[in-house]
Order: sequence, then C-alpha cells, then structure tokens
Amino acid sequence: MDRSKMPVVGVDIGGTKIIAAVFNADGAMLSRIYCLTLGSEGPDRVINRLCTTITQAIEKAGLKRKQVGCIGIAAAGAIDINRGLVGDSPNIPHWHNIPLRDRLAESLGGTIYVLNDANAAALAEHRLGAGRGLNNMIYITVSTGIGGGMIIDGELYQGTDGSAAEIGHMIIKIGGPLCKCGKRGCFEAMASGTAIARLAKSRLRRGEGSIMPGLVRGKVSDVNAQTVADAARQGDELALAVIEQSAGYLGIGVANLVNLMNPQMIIIGGGVSKMGEMLLSPTRKSMKANSIELPARSVRLVRPRLGVDAELTGAALYARDMLRAKA
Amino acid sequence: MDRSKMPVVGVDIGGTKIIAAVFNADGAMLSRIYCLTLGSEGPDRVINRLCTTITQAIEKAGLKRKQVGCIGIAAAGAIDINRGLVGDSPNIPHWHNIPLRDRLAESLGGTIYVLNDANAAALAEHRLGAGRGLNNMIYITVSTGIGGGMIIDGELYQGTDGSAAEIGHMIIKIGGPLCKCGKRGCFEAMASGTAIARLAKSRLRRGEGSIMPGLVRGKVSDVNAQTVADAARQGDELALAVIEQSAGYLGIGVANLVNLMNPQMIIIGGGVSKMGEMLLSPTRKSMKANSIELPARSVRLVRPRLGVDAELTGAALYARDMLRAKA
Repeated sequence: MDRSKMPVVGVDIGGTKIIAAVFNADGAMLSRIYCLTLGSEGPDRVINRLCTTITQAIEKAGLKRKQVGCIGIAAAGAIDINRGLVGDSPNIPHWHNIPLRDRLAESLGGTIYVLNDANAAALAEHRLGAGRGLNNMIYITVSTGIGGGMIIDGELYQGTDGSAAEIGHMIIKIGGPLCKCGKRGCFEAMASGTAIARLAKSRLRRGEGSIMPGLVRGKVSDVNAQTVADAARQGDELALAVIEQSAGYLGIGVANLVNLMNPQMIIIGGGVSKMGEMLLSPTRKSMKANSIELPARSVRLVRPRLGVDAELTGAALYARDMLRAKA
Repeated sequence: MDRSKMPVVGVDIGGTKIIAAVFNADGAMLSRIYCLTLGSEGPDRVINRLCTTITQAIEKAGLKRKQVGCIGIAAAGAIDINRGLVGDSPNIPHWHNIPLRDRLAESLGGTIYVLNDANAAALAEHRLGAGRGLNNMIYITVSTGIGGGMIIDGELYQGTDGSAAEIGHMIIKIGGPLCKCGKRGCFEAMASGTAIARLAKSRLRRGEGSIMPGLVRGKVSDVNAQTVADAARQGDELALAVIEQSAGYLGIGVANLVNLMNPQMIIIGGGVSKMGEMLLSPTRKSMKANSIELPARSVRLVRPRLGVDAELTGAALYARDMLRAKA
C-alpha cells in the first residue's frame, strides 16, 4: 500500500495538555484525545503519557499502529529536526536536548517527525486557514511566550536545523527587561502575555487606579494577561493603557519582520490574540509607524482562522508531506 | 538568437560612483567603466550619467545596444522590483519613488531590472564567493548604513515587493539613538560606520584620552569609522573599546538573524568589515551570547570573497537569471 495515503497522527505537546488526533488521507479527523501534560513530573513521565495518548488516539480511530503511516509531533522550543531533538522547552521543566523522536520510536515504532509548534501552526494556517494560497506569510503566536513560523515561496521554512523563526528571542530593546532565556529585551520579554502581566502589575504597584485588583481579590501578584483583557473590556483605563503599550512593542517586533521578510500576511495567534482588535488595532498602527513604507503597504495583519487544533493539524500535515517526499 | 546567451550589463549606483560592466554568457567581464555619482545634482542628472556610463560600457565591450540581452541595476534602498521603482535612496538626495526602470528604458530601450544593491551582492557571494553551494545564507553590508540580502533554499529571497532583507532598520534598541530613517534604535543607528563614528566622537568629547584627535588635526567632528580603525590598529585603547562596543551591537543584530533564519553562513561585507578580525571576533562572541544555542552552532560568520564589484556582478547575474526564466 502507498504509505503516503495511510492515516497519520498529529500531536501537540503544550504546557497544559497533550492532544493527539488521527487524520485520514483526505484530512478528516478520525479521532482526538487529550491528557494533561503535568510537565513538573519530568520528561520521562511526559513521554510515557505521550505514548499512551497516541496509542489511545489510534485505537479510538479503530486502527492498529501499523495502519498509521507516520506520526508528527509539535513541541515548543528550538527543535533540531534532523535529529528529532527538542532543546530547552519553555513548557516543560528539565527538558534539555531530549531525543524525542528516538524515545518515541522505541516505544511506538515507525516513522516519527518532530517540529516546532508555531511552525506547525504556520503550516496549518497556510494550508487550511487565513494564509491559504499565499507565497510568503508569517505566523506569530503570542501567549506566555512568543513563537513563530514562516512560509516562504509557499513552503514552511525551517532553516538549517529546523529552528528558524524563533522570533520570540529577537532582541528589540538592548538592556531591556530580563527574558526567561537569560537575555534582556527579547521580543517575548516585551510583548508576550507574561510581559503584559508584568507591565500591569508594575503600574498597579505604583498605585495607579484600576478595577484589576478587584478582579483578583486584591492579590496583585495574581494579575495575568487575562485579567488585563477582562478589565480592558470593562473600560478600565489602566488596562487599556497597558494593552496599548504592549501593542506598541508587538508592533515593533512585527515591523522588524515586515522589514526583513516583506511578507503578504502576518497572522497573530495565541491566547493573547484573543483580545482581538483591542490588541490588533494599536499593533497595526505601531507596525506601520516602525516599518518601511513599501513592505508595510503590502502586508495584512490578521487573526488566525484555525483554533486550538492548529498545532496538531500542522504536525499531521507536516508528517504527511514527509511521507509524500519519501514516496 | 537565444537572448539568455547574449551579453548582459551589470550596474552599481553607489553614493560615490556609478560603475557599469558588460559580461558575456560565461560570466567573463568584457568591459568596466565608472563615473562619479554626484548625487547632490539631483536624480535627473544622475539618471543621465547612468545612461551615458552604460552606453560607454557597451561600446567599450565592442558591442551595440541591441547585442545586449538585458541590463541589471543595483541601487540602495527599498526597491519595488515589480515596478522598477527606487524608494528613498540613502545615497542620493531627493530620490523618492523614482521609476528608475522606466526612466532608463526610455533612453536605452530593452529589458531592464532593478534590485537592491545588498541583495545583488548576496547573490554574487552565493554564486561566486564565500557562500557557493549553500542553501541558506545572509549577506550583511556594514558601511555608512547597514543593508542585507538573503539566500533561501539556494535562491535570492526578495519578498513580495523586492524589499526583503532591509535589516538596517530592524529595531534592536527601542528608544535608542535616532536613525536617519526617523526611527530610533535601528540596527543601522547602532552598528554602522556612522554609529561607530558617533560613539567615538561622543567619548572623545567627554574627554577620554586617545590618539584619534591627532589623526584628524584636532578636529573631533572629522572622526569617522576609518579614523577609529586606524587608531585601533595602532593600539589606541579608546578606539579598541569603541569597536568592541559597536561589535557587541553588530553581534546582537546578527544574533536576531540567526534566531530568525537559522542560516548556514552570515557574510559581513561593506567598508567597515575591512577592519577584519578586530571587528569580527567580538561580533562572533556577541552573536553567540545573544542567540539560541542550536542555530548559533550551525552558523559561520565570515568576510566576503568578492570585492567592490560584488554589487554590479550580482546585478548582472540577476539580469541573466531573469532572461533565462523568460526564455
């Protein structure tokens, strides 16, 4: 049988959940199953749960392991795709150069591909979502961190090792706030959900008035990006100002990408993007003010079309592409 | 006759000189001629001189205009390659959206292509220089400004309009020094030859000891990047410190490109790169400290192999590629 027409599994290892789904050759989802990541239990246990979840998804689809053509895994962090190695994962403590592909192959057998989760979402948005038919687009995910994926000349661009589009660690403010990577002024340290929360907390602690403390029972340390979004929707001036400031930084990072890549579209996804136009509108303004006129005219800044399954869908699309390339 | 085998002209419009050369189908240079740009005389006169120089180069090669397959022009600034439009040129005053392709075609006839000069140099370094055979490389030119060109999957990447790789205006220090583009903290404002001169002058004016004033007859306002390089070669501590500081910023911009593109090689050209290892060695150190481990391991930071003719050679290569694509 032509392996490239066999069902494939797509998996997303997130900070909270592991989700696995089986797709047939037409792209229809045959099954979907998830479990909690529980990253604090360490890599070994997470890998065991990953294997179990994949096995269960295959069973739920009414298939046997050997009826599956291959498995695509989307994971956070810089991935060495040639060796299936996951570098430091921001989501899972103690992940450092874990040979995920080989570890999974030991338990599950068969062909397994690992790629960056934002790269996977970029591929899915390009094939099935907001970026269909485009030559050049960039997908940005803004949540606790910032990740990215690039489509160049209609194909996912992964670079030499597979770590391309690590846009979260592009430095936009030398000497700026400390990033969890250890450097200062990274895009992620300036414009992620974590940065929004930090900005809000620092302004609340300086005594600026807001409804935010009331939303977290007075415990300012509990303020997160969601709190800011909720307060902003109720018209809270400080929350709106924090979003405006953060969108200004987001727009600068986006402008850098516009100047570098001259893309047709930039898609802003991730939890923080759910703020919608409240975030995107000032981001667009800052992007225009901070980029060169010509590429700024060509680019459209939009939200994604796909939902939480973008990463696992992209992982499955990627795995099938790899099967086809080998066929 | 197969037009793609006809001789082609490559031209470089620099801030100081216009250089034109004719190449045969094997890439051999048949003639080379130059004139001063004299940009202060305005676009019309520069375009006239450009036409004359091209005509003379064709004559010097013993050819007639109709024996030339096409002409490739390398110019600074963001170029709309689809319309042959040169946006704001940093080299020539009063250039704003000049329809260079059409203006030249009126006078010279035939097929003319315009591309960014650093893009042209990137193409030449990839085909004939330090980057031969690589899939992914970035060329950076550091002189009074900073420009760039990217090779992706073995091809010059120009983006949607042709303005890709405008790396000089990537913001690396929000709120940093003013760039001539009007924004603050651009890579160019932090790490170009102009920035090196600014750093040196500001430290000299604060009274730091150095041999530099002696090299410019006491006129500190005359200190430029060349003065700093000359003093550093004589062991001047302030000059060395300025280069180290500037290389730190250069390394941060390079690290951003490493994180984004995960390239095999970054070539640093342009006048400032002639400082050699004195600049490149601290740049490499800063690049490693500021980029992700995986892509930092894969990239080599080197100097170009081609000399002052890289831009016009790249323009000729580009023009021939276009002819072939049409054939």
